[in-house]
Amino acid sequence: MTDAGDLTRFPDLQVRDLGALRALLADVYLGTVAYIGPHGPDALPTAVALHDDRLVWHGSTGAGWLRRLADGSPVAVSVTALDGVVVARASFESSFWYRSAVIRGIPQVLEGDERGAALDAIVERILPGRTAETRVPSAKELAATVVLALPLDDWTLKASRDWPEDQPADVAGDVWAGVVPLEVRHLAPLDAPDLRAGIEVAASCRRLSPGSE
Amino acid sequence: MTDAGDLTRFPDLQVRDLGALRALLADVYLGTVAYIGPHGPDALPTAVALHDDRLVWHGSTGAGWLRRLADGSPVAVSVTALDGVVVARASFESSFWYRSAVIRGIPQVLEGDERGAALDAIVERILPGRTAETRVPSAKELAATVVLALPLDDWTLKASRDWPEDQPADVAGDVWAGVVPLEVRHLAPLDAPDLRAGIEVAASCRRLSPGSE
Repeated sequence: MTDAGDLTRFPDLQVRDLGALRALLADVYLGTVAYIGPHGPDALPTAVALHDDRLVWHGSTGAGWLRRLADGSPVAVSVTALDGVVVARASFESSFWYRSAVIRGIPQVLEGDERGAALDAIVERILPGRTAETRVPSAKELAATVVLALPLDDWTLKASRDWPEDQPADVAGDVWAGVVPLEVRHLAPLDAPDLRAGIEVAASCRRLSPGSE
Repeated sequence: MTDAGDLTRFPDLQVRDLGALRALLADVYLGTVAYIGPHGPDALPTAVALHDDRLVWHGSTGAGWLRRLADGSPVAVSVTALDGVVVARASFESSFWYRSAVIRGIPQVLEGDERGAALDAIVERILPGRTAETRVPSAKELAATVVLALPLDDWTLKASRDWPEDQPADVAGDVWAGVVPLEVRHLAPLDAPDLRAGIEVAASCRRLSPGSE
């Protein structure tokens, strides 16, 4: 199910360790779901989480793209961490530190208890500890929500964390080379305008923003 | 060419201003290219940049997915900024501050001077000022590179930067609500292990990492 051209060229970039996929999904929850829409390939971003060894995501029952997927459309979900800009002396050798997974298959619609548990997993993935701070979703809220699950059966993971590999003539020159690391940070939480007086920032949110406590 | 279900539901989230698309592409260069592969929908991340009012990206002539695209396959390129986690009192009302574009069409292969100019635009997008610090690509390097360009003819942009909108009963409760903003940061540049003594960090890279100069 993978692009043979790519795999043949860079076999060293392929990672076959499920632990590495788990680690990426522990760092990045933004997924881009590619699917075939009414007019061709299409893509939408959504928050994804691992739950029971499946990739889960959710949305409104009113969303056309989720209804399409719920009808049994194949998808490819791309999850990427950009960990740094690899700045070689030559532009041609420049690249990224990255980890990039694609998980493919036909998602299943979760129902009943499975649906609630998967929704909790998504909340906990984004805000660890949040489900203990909030009420449980109402029956009406659950009824308005589609939850999809994609087994980790068909996936590829590519990763690179190499230094620049310039030609000897470039290395002998005067141009700087190295890596500029990238990091996603949570900033200090902002109170909602309608927050009642005396309510402190939730512990789950304080923990996300180091230095803001 | 868009998902009518989504557009009907959330018309207020649609942004039709080309300036807003440009602003997103000035903030985010990670794109995910959705296309139809040999076995169904597929997706790959790549760096994208605006050049001459087209979205451009590049890769190796040996990459199977780029050869497929160069043959005239339709694509949907998704570019997403996650600007914050919207933490409502109820999980159901929680969401994100985000800006998310999808640009659709059939990419064109750039040749000759157009190819070199587009490659420069990609380098400058990632590292402003870098092309003035490095040598020009060799003919051999250019020959090994495919550059694709997608006109901004068919695109959608959705954005949200709202506060939580909880039900009155939840607002009256004791649960915190607000937003945890997200930020992507460049960290201090790291020298390549084979960097010759006495070469200072490139100005282009120093400028990316505030506080590291």
